Amino acid sequence: MRGKRSELIPDGGHGELALLDRIRRRSARSASGGLRLGIGDDCAILRQKPGEELAVTTDLSIAGRHFRLEWHPPESVGHRTLARGLSDIAAMGARPVAALLSLGLPKQLAVARGRRHAWVDRFLDGFLALADQYQTPLAGGDLAESPQAVADIVLLGAVPRGKALLRSGARPGDVVYVTGALGGAAAGLELLQRRLGRTLSTARKSEKKQDLLAPSLWPQPRVRQGLWLRRRQAATAAIDLSDGLSTDLDHLCSESEVSAEIDAEAMPISAGATQDQALHGGEDYELLFTSRPNFSIPRGIAGVSVSRIGRIVKKRAGQPRIILRDASGRHTLSRAGWEHFS
Amino acid sequence: MRGKRSELIPDGGHGELALLDRIRRRSARSASGGLRLGIGDDCAILRQKPGEELAVTTDLSIAGRHFRLEWHPPESVGHRTLARGLSDIAAMGARPVAALLSLGLPKQLAVARGRRHAWVDRFLDGFLALADQYQTPLAGGDLAESPQAVADIVLLGAVPRGKALLRSGARPGDVVYVTGALGGAAAGLELLQRRLGRTLSTARKSEKKQDLLAPSLWPQPRVRQGLWLRRRQAATAAIDLSDGLSTDLDHLCSESEVSAEIDAEAMPISAGATQDQALHGGEDYELLFTSRPNFSIPRGIAGVSVSRIGRIVKKRAGQPRIILRDASGRHTLSRAGWEHFS
Repeated sequence: MRGKRSELIPDGGHGELALLDRIRRRSARSASGGLRLGIGDDCAILRQKPGEELAVTTDLSIAGRHFRLEWHPPESVGHRTLARGLSDIAAMGARPVAALLSLGLPKQLAVARGRRHAWVDRFLDGFLALADQYQTPLAGGDLAESPQAVADIVLLGAVPRGKALLRSGARPGDVVYVTGALGGAAAGLELLQRRLGRTLSTARKSEKKQDLLAPSLWPQPRVRQGLWLRRRQAATAAIDLSDGLSTDLDHLCSESEVSAEIDAEAMPISAGATQDQALHGGEDYELLFTSRPNFSIPRGIAGVSVSRIGRIVKKRAGQPRIILRDASGRHTLSRAGWEHFS
Repeated sequence: MRGKRSELIPDGGHGELALLDRIRRRSARSASGGLRLGIGDDCAILRQKPGEELAVTTDLSIAGRHFRLEWHPPESVGHRTLARGLSDIAAMGARPVAALLSLGLPKQLAVARGRRHAWVDRFLDGFLALADQYQTPLAGGDLAESPQAVADIVLLGAVPRGKALLRSGARPGDVVYVTGALGGAAAGLELLQRRLGRTLSTARKSEKKQDLLAPSLWPQPRVRQGLWLRRRQAATAAIDLSDGLSTDLDHLCSESEVSAEIDAEAMPISAGATQDQALHGGEDYELLFTSRPNFSIPRGIAGVSVSRIGRIVKKRAGQPRIILRDASGRHTLSRAGWEHFS
């Protein structure tokens, strides 16, 4: 982070440096082994263990696109910002080492009003709670005033040399698996959209509806599952489900130069979600992976269910990349997840 | 980057995947040693040399704050986005290894209109030209549609273990130096603001005024100078001048727990700039560093002038952190650079 602790700015001050100071004091609690130098200089410094490589990813979250200030509690926006980055690290089978955060905020979100905490402090509550859970120190970043709220997360992870799970390793004959259940984030978002969400999240009238919102508000990155797969060399390829199964499986097949067949009836669908939401809804942050047919994948990994949903087949010119099989036959599954600028 | 090359999207297509494809093809040209896996998977993978640490930084550039679509040519916005990150790497004495770029753009900036190149392609021209100059491959990032144009740069650099130049190493008695000349970016911005800029940048009527705009439009990160200082162990502390001398020297003094005295007459002021712009104007991206008094710093490093502008003194309670000395006496130099949310 630019700026640093300064005697000139009292606690609770309103400027950038005061906010940096608050962030710095809170982030210092979660320092870890790989991080040598955190917030307070021009760069953070990381030291790798011998034999490890560094995985690095960055993901934008923009108000009105990836979250809505009027639908999502600030803690959820913070949680989801970090979850997006952790999920990419999980998909490589890497161990999170540190995060950097760039925040652009309208002034009214950066300052407290009376006794109410500032939006940004509640954002940090959600962000740092998830960071603590995965021992991921906040090592730096940038702050700026912005007409639009925007958060860019940088995640750094460590992985033994040459052992990262890639999108490109799937081969014909491999089996396709997915962790958890799909469509829950899309279904939860629809609930929020229908304005039910706002009442629910404040009044907490219905435990059941809170459960339906959880996949959308508090997605859980599958870091432990990614580590399990990598350590046991169980997966030939992996990707996280951020854009939707139909889009992300397409990415995996394209990078691996293969095709895939999915069994509709084997799809694990979240409570309250439709098959369409499970196939095309984004932001579930589950892992999609492939494994050799003779490798025995358990039904659950580190407390999360695993479902066998299809198989990798040879790519054939002129044939669709993904086939969906159900009781009525074989259908082309087109990429219908989120695409920007389309 | 999310997404990947796909046969489904023709060249010149308008969607996110088509844009990713264009970026991926262009960025592949500049791959380097430390980068093991670039655009096309969930993360980029870097491999460090033994005995090296990783420096990482992220910097936001937001339309209306850090650049103006109506003042800055798209190539300049791309150049400046990357220069911000390279400058932080330079300030640590690190060698750039790879960059990641998160771009949020309104749709009209992402698509070409008729024969005119899309804004984003001209942005990439500027970005990749500077990336080539510093052998910094674009290794990944994220793309999203956004009401506001926003670019977040992530820069990764390598530095021998324990050898990074820090803000915190300055000691009383050290001499304060600065590379290049100061105030040029602020003076150039004022020219652009006065609408002279727009005419100038298209018509190029006046070579001289182009020169005056260069520090603002095409700042040069001092990567070679930072490497020189680190390799010769010439600097006790360093910071890049992004927020303005008065603010950034304050950061350095605060981290080092020292004070400083600056000689107004020794300040290298850019042609066309005022002393105020040199003291408080941001975005010059020069290096400010300190050196032991017995270390002989040359007048130029790797083709850029170096000026001795003051000295580090002991911090005294109740005394101002920075004193400016001129013919009329000693004055308190208050932090007056850019501060967001203030």
